[in-house]
Amino acid sequence: MDGMLVIISGPSGSGKGTVVKQLNPDNGYALSISVTTRKPREGEQHGRDYFFTAEEDFHTMRQENNLLEHFFYVGNYYGTPRKYVEEQIAEGKIVVLEIEVNGALQVKEKFPSAVLIFLMPPTHSELENRLKKRGTEDAGTIEARLKQALEEVPLIHRYNYLVINDVIPEAVAKIDAIVAAERMKPTRCAAKIQDFLRS
Amino acid sequence: MDGMLVIISGPSGSGKGTVVKQLNPDNGYALSISVTTRKPREGEQHGRDYFFTAEEDFHTMRQENNLLEHFFYVGNYYGTPRKYVEEQIAEGKIVVLEIEVNGALQVKEKFPSAVLIFLMPPTHSELENRLKKRGTEDAGTIEARLKQALEEVPLIHRYNYLVINDVIPEAVAKIDAIVAAERMKPTRCAAKIQDFLRS
Repeated sequence: MDGMLVIISGPSGSGKGTVVKQLNPDNGYALSISVTTRKPREGEQHGRDYFFTAEEDFHTMRQENNLLEHFFYVGNYYGTPRKYVEEQIAEGKIVVLEIEVNGALQVKEKFPSAVLIFLMPPTHSELENRLKKRGTEDAGTIEARLKQALEEVPLIHRYNYLVINDVIPEAVAKIDAIVAAERMKPTRCAAKIQDFLRS
Repeated sequence: MDGMLVIISGPSGSGKGTVVKQLNPDNGYALSISVTTRKPREGEQHGRDYFFTAEEDFHTMRQENNLLEHFFYVGNYYGTPRKYVEEQIAEGKIVVLEIEVNGALQVKEKFPSAVLIFLMPPTHSELENRLKKRGTEDAGTIEARLKQALEEVPLIHRYNYLVINDVIPEAVAKIDAIVAAERMKPTRCAAKIQDFLRS
């Protein structure tokens, strides 16, 4: 079966993380693993949680176009390694990358065959509820995130699919349907077409 | 829910007719109804089996670009009426058009939002088996149809999806997944995006 890169993206509070955790590895899903210059925390494992990398090597990767996207956060660099994604795809995996909107669009530019999914709560007030329930941000931050969500919505048109994340298992089923449909695109079916012509 | 036109196409013997009959109307499927200049046979009903039309009116439809495709067969004209398809789509239906390859490509040109599905048996020898089992064509005709199938395969790249029709219920499930995915394309989700922005 042909592999592919699936990007699950959307506003903060859209439920990206929760949905991604529910994707069944038996269906071929494999999470993308980030490169970081941050030191490993206790229990973290190289090649499972992150690829831990020296800053010099990180910059080399970036310069050689081996990062699909990258950013700097609280003193450390993070990025998505192209090589790992490509290797997993070659093994037939559906590589899942959970990422905010700007990063997603960056990746799509460098990796045009990626399937870009925008996750969105059914309503703006539901998004507000979710952000408040999380209890991790203060009122000002929540306000800023809500404003940002409204700015991100027009970018949906640069995405391949819009998944309304109302009930989690339904959102997961929708992503499964998208992957099933993508696998039937002629560009991803070269082997099947060859099989038919050879038989 | 947004409607759409879904074209089920493929070589003779690919199982188009059988698969189309299994699509569940409860999922929103509605068969396209052809216009014809042929006289109604016993039991045939105008607006259910065909739209029976005078030849003059048929030609008017054609000239006014109201037929998505048309052909002449054993003394009569047949065509797909654009207006009926558009009305059904406006009602949210998934209008299903079962048609051979050339007709399908004709429709796609006139109706670019149509979802074009190529149905293909898993192997060339399986196609041969099916054509022989049907018992409706002589050896020469079967030979010609097999040759034609090989000529049609390269046209898959003008289609949106390739569905291998091995086991009928699986092919039906694949078409359901395609329709579900297509409904999540941003171009078909204007109402959902508006709902979010308004909420």
